[in-house]
Amino acid sequence: MRTSIATVCLSGTLAEKLRAAADAGFDGVEIFEQDLTVSPHSPEQIRRRAADLGLTLDLFQPFRDFEGVEEAQFEANLRRMEAKFALMNRLGIDTILLCSNVATATIDDDGLFAAQLRRAGELAERYDVRIAYEALAWGRFVNDFEHARRIVDLAGHPRVGTCLDTFHILSRGWSTDAVEEIAGEKIFFVQLADAPQLSMDILSWSRHHRVFPGEGDFDLVKFMRHLARTGYDGPVSLEIFNDSFRKAEVGRTAVDGLRSLRWLEDQTWRALHAAGEGKAAEALELSPLPEVADPEGVDFVEISTGRLGETIKVLHQLGFRLGGYHRSKPQFQVWTQGPVRVVIGDRGPTGAPTGITSLGVRTPDPAAAQARAHLLQARPVPRERAAGEVELHGVYAPDGTEVFFSGLAPETAPAWLAEFGVTDNDLEPAPLITGIDHVNLAQPWQHYDETVLFYTSLMALETHSREEFPSPIGLISNKVMRSANDTVRLLLSVAPEDGEQGDFLAAAYPEHIAITTTDIVAVARRARQRGLAFLPVPENYYDDLQARFDLTPAFLAELRENDLLYDRDADGEFLHFYTGTLGTMFIEVVERRGGFSGWGENNAPVRLAAQYRNVRDAERGIPQ
Amino acid sequence: MRTSIATVCLSGTLAEKLRAAADAGFDGVEIFEQDLTVSPHSPEQIRRRAADLGLTLDLFQPFRDFEGVEEAQFEANLRRMEAKFALMNRLGIDTILLCSNVATATIDDDGLFAAQLRRAGELAERYDVRIAYEALAWGRFVNDFEHARRIVDLAGHPRVGTCLDTFHILSRGWSTDAVEEIAGEKIFFVQLADAPQLSMDILSWSRHHRVFPGEGDFDLVKFMRHLARTGYDGPVSLEIFNDSFRKAEVGRTAVDGLRSLRWLEDQTWRALHAAGEGKAAEALELSPLPEVADPEGVDFVEISTGRLGETIKVLHQLGFRLGGYHRSKPQFQVWTQGPVRVVIGDRGPTGAPTGITSLGVRTPDPAAAQARAHLLQARPVPRERAAGEVELHGVYAPDGTEVFFSGLAPETAPAWLAEFGVTDNDLEPAPLITGIDHVNLAQPWQHYDETVLFYTSLMALETHSREEFPSPIGLISNKVMRSANDTVRLLLSVAPEDGEQGDFLAAAYPEHIAITTTDIVAVARRARQRGLAFLPVPENYYDDLQARFDLTPAFLAELRENDLLYDRDADGEFLHFYTGTLGTMFIEVVERRGGFSGWGENNAPVRLAAQYRNVRDAERGIPQ
Repeated sequence: MRTSIATVCLSGTLAEKLRAAADAGFDGVEIFEQDLTVSPHSPEQIRRRAADLGLTLDLFQPFRDFEGVEEAQFEANLRRMEAKFALMNRLGIDTILLCSNVATATIDDDGLFAAQLRRAGELAERYDVRIAYEALAWGRFVNDFEHARRIVDLAGHPRVGTCLDTFHILSRGWSTDAVEEIAGEKIFFVQLADAPQLSMDILSWSRHHRVFPGEGDFDLVKFMRHLARTGYDGPVSLEIFNDSFRKAEVGRTAVDGLRSLRWLEDQTWRALHAAGEGKAAEALELSPLPEVADPEGVDFVEISTGRLGETIKVLHQLGFRLGGYHRSKPQFQVWTQGPVRVVIGDRGPTGAPTGITSLGVRTPDPAAAQARAHLLQARPVPRERAAGEVELHGVYAPDGTEVFFSGLAPETAPAWLAEFGVTDNDLEPAPLITGIDHVNLAQPWQHYDETVLFYTSLMALETHSREEFPSPIGLISNKVMRSANDTVRLLLSVAPEDGEQGDFLAAAYPEHIAITTTDIVAVARRARQRGLAFLPVPENYYDDLQARFDLTPAFLAELRENDLLYDRDADGEFLHFYTGTLGTMFIEVVERRGGFSGWGENNAPVRLAAQYRNVRDAERGIPQ
Repeated sequence: MRTSIATVCLSGTLAEKLRAAADAGFDGVEIFEQDLTVSPHSPEQIRRRAADLGLTLDLFQPFRDFEGVEEAQFEANLRRMEAKFALMNRLGIDTILLCSNVATATIDDDGLFAAQLRRAGELAERYDVRIAYEALAWGRFVNDFEHARRIVDLAGHPRVGTCLDTFHILSRGWSTDAVEEIAGEKIFFVQLADAPQLSMDILSWSRHHRVFPGEGDFDLVKFMRHLARTGYDGPVSLEIFNDSFRKAEVGRTAVDGLRSLRWLEDQTWRALHAAGEGKAAEALELSPLPEVADPEGVDFVEISTGRLGETIKVLHQLGFRLGGYHRSKPQFQVWTQGPVRVVIGDRGPTGAPTGITSLGVRTPDPAAAQARAHLLQARPVPRERAAGEVELHGVYAPDGTEVFFSGLAPETAPAWLAEFGVTDNDLEPAPLITGIDHVNLAQPWQHYDETVLFYTSLMALETHSREEFPSPIGLISNKVMRSANDTVRLLLSVAPEDGEQGDFLAAAYPEHIAITTTDIVAVARRARQRGLAFLPVPENYYDDLQARFDLTPAFLAELRENDLLYDRDADGEFLHFYTGTLGTMFIEVVERRGGFSGWGENNAPVRLAAQYRNVRDAERGIPQ
């Protein structure tokens, strides 16, 4: 698939954008006119630079407010267009994007639109360029891709075709079925954008909230299947107006963008082949990535700490046992309880904050997952390995978390445990703890969308829900991503980094590991006996629980006594408690009764308020 | 006017919110239930704390999803309500906010709503509390304040009244005229919110984008006039859900909130008195602030610099002359050209960046302006004054800029100039420069709304327009505020502080002073002769100008030759140039021909790209 990206997606100067697009591996770019206008480089210099970088210049855009006007105005518009055709000749670009008229059209007449497009086509002929006419979703008279296509047909000029932009089609809720009815050779260009479903005016939605394919809610695979059937063989290009991308580091945005196209290409190839339409994939030159099956649970979590003592104390209080030390890297130790394994990287008595550094995810075919990750330009984690040790491949997630692809060994000890001197015989039964319910990772807001695509494209996770909840330092945004088989659940949280509420932010939103039990009261009692510092739950919370759920006094007393929080939905109940904070993390224990589908989000404000008070009190020197 | 604020408006813990509200001078607060639920303080402790701080607890809120349900569900709802009434008794709060049912109502029957409210009223009687029923704009069956009022009338219970919330009324575009038809004693509570006009779903708009009165687009003065006529004599309370306020420093938000109510009170008092309805102002106990007349131009701009040499060089190149040194503070010097006066604070050869520190605004009655500013809790600028020197009062704007209230002296030298040894005789004619067109100040995003209210309430500026424009580091948001007589124009810009594009951000979005000329070509030529480093304008820009405006070759050559930028609208033309950047600022020279109403926003991207390249090249050691 020929890949392209509009320069408006990227930050920096035009020269910086070109370099980033080339470095990421795009085949070409669309030149967004304003990027050229503000550039000190001449069109000829830009043309040479692109050639040096191996990039084609696929489109010059946008040309606005052309058709549907009186003759005098039209002649002025033609002169304006001719100046741009001359500029395109200097740039060596053969296609211009013409947007349906928004501001100046006064005459609603398809015949006139077509006649004016035909005259534009005659001018284009003289400059050896062609015109791709696109219906903007907010066009004055033309705002529907089928309407634009009819006008192009009516114009009947070989230099006039259409441009399809998925945002303008899908934002209006239109079906993409009719894409198939367009002749491939009349589709002069294709722009792709995804977007979250938002209820707002389309123009603002378009200008600020587009995202790369796979990061939003649009069904782009379906669009691509229809497109493939037309025989279209041109570039598939990203045109994303996004406030964050505009200010993010340009190289990283470009890699994220190319990853989105590779993922979409793979999905489209698979959908076509599954439907017996492999032939349709050929014109677009689609090729697949190595296939990854759904992951099957979290194999281990790794914590790094410069305060080993307090960290292992909490693990012990929760019932974990020390398994052993890594034979070639003795700074690593493993703690286990049933199927839950926590690796600790001991940074010595440095006081470095305790935090989650790595996840091991059980993957049916780690080699394929690694190969796919490589093709998607995920950055590999360098890892030393002594002779005889298990090969473990990992990549950095956008937030810096190391994600490792473990093999499947759900019932017995995975092979890597032997490197810690742990064998199947060492694993005592631990009936209370049954697995990892979820892992919550804090995300920098700049890379939230990138993270979604990372887990979607590398590990086939799906965005399951989104919510936001209040805290003393502002709203926390949260997305739940999970595998289709529900064995891996990640909560990705974005905290307000720019607040003014002091060190709670400097310490970062605390991440956590939630482990599952079948008997939370027993786990809580054991932990209390061993002296665990629970995160305190206010009395007011229990008063409110009582008012909301009409609980029995005995049950309420049990919750109170064990610092348990509670929630309920139509399908079940959820009981949980939190440990105090260790550096930038804590541990949660949860029990699900019945089919409760949440993860305790209704109680998150209670937790955040308590964590905030602890940080603030610590600042004031009040002992915890 | 009795002032109140909902705790949900503020960041931090409940205890911190109470202190901030008291410190700002509010009379009372609304307790937002979740703030209490997550608090470790008991209801009795909160009650005592509020009393100690001199705050009344005016409302407990919200109670949701009550009416319009089957009997069994209703009885459960009554039990839930009774628990909250008991809690209110512990808190000492006598009014609860009941929101119209959003989620659970199944029966659309005003008779049933009224009957269920009456039964709630009977329960309220037992607890000596009362119920303020409010129509949420997205209520299932009741979403209109007049409908809520009819249900309250139908319920006919003395413990059941209504709550008016301006957001729920004005977001639907409804007239507030019918407020007058409600009996004052049936209005149990009033919540005020302003908001910018946005085209998005009302729930998201409400939850994220409310602002304090005077910071948005709603006509709250009109609402207040109708309210005053009802005889309502309860608190007027702020209920603002705003993502920025939730994370901002709590004390500052509280002061901003109280300022908004004081301003609104003043405006309402004036509107009522102007209409001969002074009597209506009495029930609400409205009182006015000292009146300020419109300002009449910028008296001076003060620049602070640790690089005096390069700063005065540019002033000289633009035609300014050194007037003299301040007689008691010789580190200050003044440069003048016609009516434009630039004071320079010389920080010695420290290399401290050059930037705009103060504005002097010509004000008909500086003492009244200062008194008003004091009542609006603006922080005064401390200023030493030797005997015989002019008294000059100033306050800090939210971004830290010092704003001074100068008297009127437009034709002759203002009195303070004499302190620099400048008399009328020293002021040579300077026909080329006629005034200050506008001043552009960078704003931290956290305080953008606060800044708008600051200039609105202290100086009677009005928000004239908003726009945003792209730059290599992201979108810049911009608001133009100006005096009604158009003699003072401020451009307030918010740049993306969180971008990843390096030192352009560390150096901050560059602010500027724009001075007006009647002959920009002459000013540019003189400046070039004197060696001014103009901000370079790319050739591509002129090519595009030609295509857009069809300019004569001679005129285009004149623009090119003088590094001038150009814009045009239906009413006139705009020519301008920029100097290179000095620290965090630069100077612009503008010429308006005809009635052009913009300020060059269409050319801002050209400027920002050039400034970005300069910063980046400087980082790389490329000489400027």
